Amino acid sequence: MSKVKPRTLSGFMELLPGEQALFDRMVSTLRRTYALYGFTALDTPVIEAAEVLLAKGGGETEKQIYRFTKGDTDLALRFDLTVPLAKYVALNAGQLAFPFRRFQIGKVYRGERAQRGRFREFYQADIDVIGDGELDIINDAEMPSIIYRAFTELGLKRFVIRFNNRKLLSGLFALMGVEEDKAGEAMRIIDKLEKIGLEKVTEQLCELGLAQEKAEALLALLTCAERGEDPLERLDALSGQNAQFDEGLKELKTVASLMASFGVPETHYKIDLTIARGLDYYTGTVYETQMLDHPEIGSICSGGRYDNLAEYYTNRKLPGVGLSIGLTRLFYVLQEQGYLNTSLLTAPADVLVIPMTDDLAPAVRLATALRESGLRAQIYSENKKIKARVQYADKLGIPFVVFLGEDELKSGKITVKDMASGEQTTASPTLLISGIKQRVAALRSGAPIRDKGAMEEELF
Amino acid sequence: MSKVKPRTLSGFMELLPGEQALFDRMVSTLRRTYALYGFTALDTPVIEAAEVLLAKGGGETEKQIYRFTKGDTDLALRFDLTVPLAKYVALNAGQLAFPFRRFQIGKVYRGERAQRGRFREFYQADIDVIGDGELDIINDAEMPSIIYRAFTELGLKRFVIRFNNRKLLSGLFALMGVEEDKAGEAMRIIDKLEKIGLEKVTEQLCELGLAQEKAEALLALLTCAERGEDPLERLDALSGQNAQFDEGLKELKTVASLMASFGVPETHYKIDLTIARGLDYYTGTVYETQMLDHPEIGSICSGGRYDNLAEYYTNRKLPGVGLSIGLTRLFYVLQEQGYLNTSLLTAPADVLVIPMTDDLAPAVRLATALRESGLRAQIYSENKKIKARVQYADKLGIPFVVFLGEDELKSGKITVKDMASGEQTTASPTLLISGIKQRVAALRSGAPIRDKGAMEEELF
Repeated sequence: MSKVKPRTLSGFMELLPGEQALFDRMVSTLRRTYALYGFTALDTPVIEAAEVLLAKGGGETEKQIYRFTKGDTDLALRFDLTVPLAKYVALNAGQLAFPFRRFQIGKVYRGERAQRGRFREFYQADIDVIGDGELDIINDAEMPSIIYRAFTELGLKRFVIRFNNRKLLSGLFALMGVEEDKAGEAMRIIDKLEKIGLEKVTEQLCELGLAQEKAEALLALLTCAERGEDPLERLDALSGQNAQFDEGLKELKTVASLMASFGVPETHYKIDLTIARGLDYYTGTVYETQMLDHPEIGSICSGGRYDNLAEYYTNRKLPGVGLSIGLTRLFYVLQEQGYLNTSLLTAPADVLVIPMTDDLAPAVRLATALRESGLRAQIYSENKKIKARVQYADKLGIPFVVFLGEDELKSGKITVKDMASGEQTTASPTLLISGIKQRVAALRSGAPIRDKGAMEEELF
Repeated sequence: MSKVKPRTLSGFMELLPGEQALFDRMVSTLRRTYALYGFTALDTPVIEAAEVLLAKGGGETEKQIYRFTKGDTDLALRFDLTVPLAKYVALNAGQLAFPFRRFQIGKVYRGERAQRGRFREFYQADIDVIGDGELDIINDAEMPSIIYRAFTELGLKRFVIRFNNRKLLSGLFALMGVEEDKAGEAMRIIDKLEKIGLEKVTEQLCELGLAQEKAEALLALLTCAERGEDPLERLDALSGQNAQFDEGLKELKTVASLMASFGVPETHYKIDLTIARGLDYYTGTVYETQMLDHPEIGSICSGGRYDNLAEYYTNRKLPGVGLSIGLTRLFYVLQEQGYLNTSLLTAPADVLVIPMTDDLAPAVRLATALRESGLRAQIYSENKKIKARVQYADKLGIPFVVFLGEDELKSGKITVKDMASGEQTTASPTLLISGIKQRVAALRSGAPIRDKGAMEEELF
């Protein structure tokens, strides 16, 4: 028979079993963390009516989208989890309680030009809180604590959550004489500060109509924290002149003031007035998260407050605040940088049972008992030499191997080999099971990420 | 702004939060069970090259597939999890250890005509064990124990796993004089027994060239268990005449003989010689699983042994045995039949913290403490009357509400309302947290399915 060459499309991540175990561990850690904050899980279709998905329309999105017809229906694959959320909330508003807190971890699709570290199918891990008409600022203050806990649980140590407020920025632009219809563009220019540098940003602000000295003054203010100044103090001096600025400043202060109560240490958050986010969508608090030792990676968790989630579907005003982690890209980056905790047990089983007699029933009964105890057990009874059987456990990283021969059956005791130490122990099954359980619990504890930066720090 | 009508495509399941919680509970139960048997999780792309996905080609599949181009690439959405597994194993064989045991729970796509209970996007939950060249029969015997444990953990009680062996059937056909090239067709006819009845099957077997009396004898043998006869005894009488029959019988006996050791009670499995499965793909043991009180639903978990997983991609012979649960359809059916355990706690939070003071910090600190203890907590600080705040907890089914007013702050004690009983308790946070944890653990324990048949049985 002529064969088709098996291949996986470029831009699609497909992991080997050990890697997948670490990825899944990250997903379950995020699920557990999000649940602690009262978020409910959603799962929306990957395919939606193109008309629904592209209600907002235009822009880069439309070019990248996977769109096709089936029968008469114009279909598209979701390119983010926000538009499906908007559809879901507009569709089910009557059956939901507001504020509606949901998380969704799912695949999204963008037909981008394939390049290293860019994915066409990737997981996003999103949380959003949606209000009905209004939404209290406490929800904005809670977001950094969720990021902090999530990343800490994942094992990341050296990161900082930076936040700002777009109302404050807009007000500041107005105070500096930027025309209102140019505030969005000014926001996008500020957002590029880290990428293109102070000089270019000043230049572009001038092109937008700002006087050179005003642009410089604005940037000096936005970057004041870098020179050890307290941004809130600097901002306070400007209050009372612009309502939007004042509101933004008040919100920013509220968010900052609750960090300690939310359990976020001072080392892990920062007011950063240069955070603007490119999207017009955001209207208040905005967030970015940086790995301290890898700023070149950019933000690994971003989001913000928006006024109106579902304006393309409903007249109901649904303000919200949310965060998104690009999980596939984060995993890729962590792997590239050697941040994955490869010492975590990722084998598919805790114990490999090797029957050495023709009658398989005793091995099966032992495997059943191991599983009853909560241990992950596999029976290996392929027709291979004993050495090959043990190598199988070795290749998979299965930590314990049990041999079950005539001697064991006669004595009622079993022999367990600890693959790491090579040590063999013979004892009753009950005794051995409890010992294995302890060891396995230790091997499985620990986080999926091992922060290299923090480890190096500990060395000194 | 003109609005787009929000809608979800027909044939796509999108659940409300409480339903989703039950569905997710089913998924996590399956994941845990599969892991106990040493299966590793895989996650393959939803989109594959059409040429790879359709390597086998032809048939119903090709008509139902979602296929489209992006740029120059001919793409398709996966329609099952078996073809992607075949691709994966062919592609990564060098890095895998055999037998390779994997589970995958993921969405697949079939553009079927939409009708009630038929889905175009649905979850499959698959397990497969793939051997390199050969694969021991013990793996076939293990499959029913995995189904048994999985469904039992899910809460299903009244079901039976039926299995048979296609070698035995083929051998039997040969003994009855069915020509070899017609064995596949005979298998498909037998498979329809439950659907079209004895008479029609006899008729169709005769059309295939079998004499009336032979067809009747064959069917009498296949259905002998219904008349209280022991099928293995009846089959034994025919041994020694056909090698394939003898091999199939031996395999069937081995599988049956290990059921007890694998912990499957006699009430939950059955040798059923009429199980044939329609697909030519299967070459040995075949399985079906029936809900005793709802035979009309058909098999809720099916599978079998196959000789060659990846013959379209590689010359390497990769025999395997696997099972698949159509999870979306199963969930739909369980919901329709009232089998979902709606008394299970599916609220997004265990505790709702209601701040009654302007300073939100104490409420935030309490929520942080609750989360540290492992409780899922949400702060409700929207600008609503106290009654509306409590109604929010009620609507979501959150079991406990904590009020935090001036009195509480002064006394250092908090007041908790148990929403089920209406009872209010005032005590120190530490004391209350441990009490709430106990109650919540009880509310969250229990299985996602409540077997109605079994409950009715218990009444008598």
